Amino acid sequence: MLIVADNLTAATPSVGTAMTARDTHFIRDLATRLRDAGADMLDLNLGFRSKGGSETAAWMVRETHEATGLPLCLDTADPDSMRAGLAAARDMAGPSGPATPWINSFSLEPKKIERILPLAAEYDAPIVGYCVRDVVPQSPEERLQVAVELVELADAAGVPRDRLYLDPILFPLATFQDDFQHVLSFFDSLPQLFDPPVRTMVGLSNVGHGLPAGKRQTVEAVVLPMLAALGLDAVLLNILNPQLRDTLAVLRGIEGRSVFSGADLLDR
Amino acid sequence: MLIVADNLTAATPSVGTAMTARDTHFIRDLATRLRDAGADMLDLNLGFRSKGGSETAAWMVRETHEATGLPLCLDTADPDSMRAGLAAARDMAGPSGPATPWINSFSLEPKKIERILPLAAEYDAPIVGYCVRDVVPQSPEERLQVAVELVELADAAGVPRDRLYLDPILFPLATFQDDFQHVLSFFDSLPQLFDPPVRTMVGLSNVGHGLPAGKRQTVEAVVLPMLAALGLDAVLLNILNPQLRDTLAVLRGIEGRSVFSGADLLDR
Repeated sequence: MLIVADNLTAATPSVGTAMTARDTHFIRDLATRLRDAGADMLDLNLGFRSKGGSETAAWMVRETHEATGLPLCLDTADPDSMRAGLAAARDMAGPSGPATPWINSFSLEPKKIERILPLAAEYDAPIVGYCVRDVVPQSPEERLQVAVELVELADAAGVPRDRLYLDPILFPLATFQDDFQHVLSFFDSLPQLFDPPVRTMVGLSNVGHGLPAGKRQTVEAVVLPMLAALGLDAVLLNILNPQLRDTLAVLRGIEGRSVFSGADLLDR
Repeated sequence: MLIVADNLTAATPSVGTAMTARDTHFIRDLATRLRDAGADMLDLNLGFRSKGGSETAAWMVRETHEATGLPLCLDTADPDSMRAGLAAARDMAGPSGPATPWINSFSLEPKKIERILPLAAEYDAPIVGYCVRDVVPQSPEERLQVAVELVELADAAGVPRDRLYLDPILFPLATFQDDFQHVLSFFDSLPQLFDPPVRTMVGLSNVGHGLPAGKRQTVEAVVLPMLAALGLDAVLLNILNPQLRDTLAVLRGIEGRSVFSGADLLDR
């Protein structure tokens, strides 16, 4: 399971300000801390800005990759910013340059299909597809129907299945209590629906929305192992959350990615 | 998922002493605390004593059921104690009497096959089968082979499949790091192996063996959601462990067993 840090997000005021101000020190320092905390990849959430978005995307790609050497995931709804980030990564190509960034995300929204999805084929980039329409799905079938439509669109756009990551979208457990069962059944159904198979990703932070921070951590620390057991390929999360870091240490041991001795767990 | 408290165990000195001394107050008080902490069933681990074991088993069945009204799981290697516990429960039968206790456990050990397994048919009792020979299985196939043998034995003994619980046996993660992947694949394989299906149970506490208490809790709190996602039917655990109680509160919300608001979680 690939661990993608969600911390470099314009939605956090200090990070958004540092992006706008081109605060190299702040961004590089945070990116380095995320790598040292165990991130395999950095999500660059560039926010909703459009004016200057392209320049910001390119600058963020250069700064964070140079600081960490990690692959990147570009997270913006603005097609121009997305393209600028992909182009900046390609311009850095070479032995020490970044792998092609992931595109996060497309959906059934026409603008995304027309202007974001084609970038995946043009840049040979992995792309994340959101398996919901505008609202919480009313049934497991509704989410799977969106998945089928996304896969058809990605096939038609020339995206190989092993570069297509479906995100079922987690809704807040405290508000939409029944929906997480639908997400679990989504993972059970995918292998039967798609051959060749697609991959999966979730953004974890939404599932604890509405709870105090310490309780969000607990909910995330339960939900993540469940999805890992069902074969989740990639997760977007707050890598600086201490409870999740412990959860990841155990999961990495179980996956055989690291030797597990318990030495790096907090003693609670 | 049925939550079985493992706390009433003779391996804990204070509990063992209370069993021997027939300390009604101690045993009833602990049993009540386990129920109030969320246990669905109480495991009565009677230890290895044989002298007086039958009387202890019968006394424990009466005291714990009268104190809590909960169903019980009888955990002893001594066939006479097992029979005495089952008989005591049957003698209490009636509107307020206990459901038939579970038998925990049988295995491929000849004494268990000859003297424990037949009690399941005689008393119409659910029974747990341990899917290992003497040592840690060297491959996923080895555990499944034991499972097949146990199911054949249980079929021959007249135990219905829906009263047969297979326990793959968790080994300490810090010592046998690779084995837990085999356990995960065990859950994937069971539905293909057995029709009608069997049920599953695990004893959780062994997986963190060798770690300090606080780190054991973390390992257990990762492993339990993974197994829950794979359809685990029953788990034996320390219900008084605060981190696990939080994990169970989230799992119960996800299962729809309780309304989930986060109110009963600790704020970390």
